[in-house]
Parts: sequence; structure tokens; C-alpha cells
Amino acid sequence: MTLSGVTTLLFDTYGTVVDWRTTVADEGRRLAREKNLAAIDWDAFADAWRAGYQPAMNSIRAGERAWTTNDSLQRQRLDEIVTEFGVSGLSESDKDDFNRVWHRLRPWPDSVAGLLRLKSKFTIGTLSNGSFYLLANMAKHSGLPWDCIISADNFHHFKPDAEVYLGAVELFGGDAGRIMLVAAHNYDLGAARGYGLRTAFITRPSEYGPEQKNDLKADSDWDIITDSIGGVADALGA
Amino acid sequence: MTLSGVTTLLFDTYGTVVDWRTTVADEGRRLAREKNLAAIDWDAFADAWRAGYQPAMNSIRAGERAWTTNDSLQRQRLDEIVTEFGVSGLSESDKDDFNRVWHRLRPWPDSVAGLLRLKSKFTIGTLSNGSFYLLANMAKHSGLPWDCIISADNFHHFKPDAEVYLGAVELFGGDAGRIMLVAAHNYDLGAARGYGLRTAFITRPSEYGPEQKNDLKADSDWDIITDSIGGVADALGA
Repeated sequence: MTLSGVTTLLFDTYGTVVDWRTTVADEGRRLAREKNLAAIDWDAFADAWRAGYQPAMNSIRAGERAWTTNDSLQRQRLDEIVTEFGVSGLSESDKDDFNRVWHRLRPWPDSVAGLLRLKSKFTIGTLSNGSFYLLANMAKHSGLPWDCIISADNFHHFKPDAEVYLGAVELFGGDAGRIMLVAAHNYDLGAARGYGLRTAFITRPSEYGPEQKNDLKADSDWDIITDSIGGVADALGA
Repeated sequence: MTLSGVTTLLFDTYGTVVDWRTTVADEGRRLAREKNLAAIDWDAFADAWRAGYQPAMNSIRAGERAWTTNDSLQRQRLDEIVTEFGVSGLSESDKDDFNRVWHRLRPWPDSVAGLLRLKSKFTIGTLSNGSFYLLANMAKHSGLPWDCIISADNFHHFKPDAEVYLGAVELFGGDAGRIMLVAAHNYDLGAARGYGLRTAFITRPSEYGPEQKNDLKADSDWDIITDSIGGVADALGA
């Protein structure tokens, strides 16, 4: 294994760099206090919100619906789960604002320091299914020091569609072996490796809460296997 | 004029943020010393290199040739002008390396400080005909603190094609009035204004050298008219 040719690190974001579940649940609890909403399980609410994501992307992949940004999909999903969880008392404007919690996701404790180390040696960016605008706002809000943002929006395709990985390779001049995908999800790394990218796996065992079942460990011999972004920096000598 | 809704500043780069002419000519002179090349006018060489750019883009716009990145167009142009100027003694590898001078363009003296001021209040990025990879490398080399990079490569269209401006607006959520284009070229701002973006003009009277004829002043009532990136920051209270 030689990683000496790697010049660019692209990161999955939700779960890999930011802790969506805790951020969303905390903001739900804050909103509930402010608006005197009836008590619900905001961790379950966050899980349900996130769970709407794969089916919505699949319907776009299958051609059943036109390209729609993840930001819009999350807003539509919010309408559904507000009903499912019996949350009443939120105006359309309240829901628009709550939807933007996905623009304000908080980094894991190791993320910003690890990214700053890597930025000193590599070009670092996102390769995320999140909307471009959402990722730009999140970076500003949470101090994520990206050199560039690459999103599903750039290709009108969501990961793991080939267009996203191959599109990123094209943007960086065509040599897949110079790019490493960093992700907390084995499926994402499997796709990336299939298109010639280098791979780094970070275990995030509480991304989906205490009952998380998937991605508790690497299921392949990824180029780097670690438990923090600092661990990626260690492995790459950054 | 109210600019209070602007959240994102996108910058033309060649000429607006970086001084391509001096960087290219200086690197030509350095190369000539290293390789003992015959004496030529490296300022004129830089001008000739740059002058190949519009015709090449026009042939792509006209559908006479397939999409090609600016990086490739500049490399092809280099072969032509090496012949035109009678430069001999450069290997293919030398020319590949010289072509990458466009990845190493130096900022104008006010650029980095001005961008850092603006970055504290706005999302800042490129909106450039330069290749994505070239812009990422240039940012790293020259300390340009972009939050994001948007390039002609993202749309397979060069400015002033509508696809570039409208594509950027779409990436930022669809509201053109929240985006300001900053450029040293009136044609670029004219296009941007036509698609609803805000506009800032920076005079760069020596971009094309002491004989520059065009863009010596604003030819319309752009939202901001100034002579440095710091002047844009002043106008926006950043």
C-alpha cells in the first residue's frame, strides 16, 4: 500500500464529520421548550427524519421523480414526521427554520482539529449527498475548513451513483488514485474503491445512537481504518 | 441600492484576484535562465498565451469541439506559442510543468487580506473559467481562502454562457439576489446582472500590462465600484 500519491481528501459529511442525530434532537428539544410543544422522543424524531432519506433518493434514482436537492427532500420529510409524531403548533416558517438545522450540524469533537491538520498538507473537501448550499452554510456555522465543496447537487446524482465519484475524479483532473474518500460508511467506500479512489474508514459507533447496528467496523481492508479524523492525519503524516 | 441580502460573494479569478501576466512572464524568464533559452519577450509571450483563450472557448461554445477544460486548452495553446516565439529546448515534461504556472498564479497585493475580511462575514468562492483542479491548486499555492470553488468545469460551459451564472445560483439555493459577482471585467458583470446577481467591479488597470485598453473603468452602475478587494469589504461593512 502506497498512499504517497494522494493529494486530495474528500469527506462524506453526515455521520463522518458531523453528528446529525444529536444536533437535530437537541434542536427539537429547544424548539419544544420555546413553543411549548407536547413531549415527544426527539432522538426517535431525528432517526425518523434521517430514515426518509434513502427512500427519497431511491425514487430519484429509479426515475420516479425528477432531481430534487437533499435540502428539499428533508423539508418534505419533515412535513411527514411532524404528522407521524403528532407535533402540532409549528408554522410553515417554524418548519422552514427547523429544516435548516441540517445546515447547522455540529462536528464530532475531533473533526475540526483533524481537518486543520490535513488541510496543511492536502486539498480537503466534501463529497456529500447534502446540498451544496447546505454544506457551505454548515462549514461556516461549524468551522469546517474545506478548500472546496462537492455535492450531489453538482452531478444531479446521489452517492453511491457512479456519477458522483467519477464526477469528482474528473474535477480533479482525472486521476482517481490521487483522491481519497474518507467515510464512516462501508458502502460509500466500496463504491469509491470500485472507481479507483483511495479509502479511509472512520468508525462512528454512535452516529445512529446507542443501538447502532451498521458500520461498527470496517468490512474491508480500506487503506486507512481509524476512529477519528486525527487518525487519518496520523496515517498520512499530516 | 440595498446589499443587505447578499450572503455569498463569487469571484472571477484571472485578473480580478490573481496577476496572471506577471506570474507567467516571470516564470518564463526563470525557465529561460534555467534552460539557457534564446532571449524572447516574455511579457508578450504571456499575452499571446492568454489571447488564445477566447478563440478556444468560442469554438467550444459554437459546438465545433467537445467540452475541454481550460487547463487542456492552455496546454494546447502553449504548443502553438512555443512555435510562434521560436522557443526551443523544452521537453514535453518541461511544457507540462510550465503549463502548471496557471495553477501557481500570484494574488494581487490586496487580494488575500481583502478575502480574509470578506470571509469573516460572507461565503466566498470562485466563479471562474479556470479548471476546478487548477483553482484548487492555485488557492493552496497562493493562500486564497475560498470557502468553495465553482468552475466552468462544473457546468461544461464557460462564462459568459448563462449556464455558469444560473448554475451557481442553483447551487446556492436559487435566489440570485443573495449572490454578488466580483470581477475586473465589465462583460462578466453585465452577464451576471442579467441573471439577477449583484455586481462589484474592481479596476485592475495593469492586468494586461501598461498598454491595457479595456476595463480601465466601470461601464455601468455596478452595485460596487472600487479598486481592490479591500474596497469591496469596505463597501459591505466586512
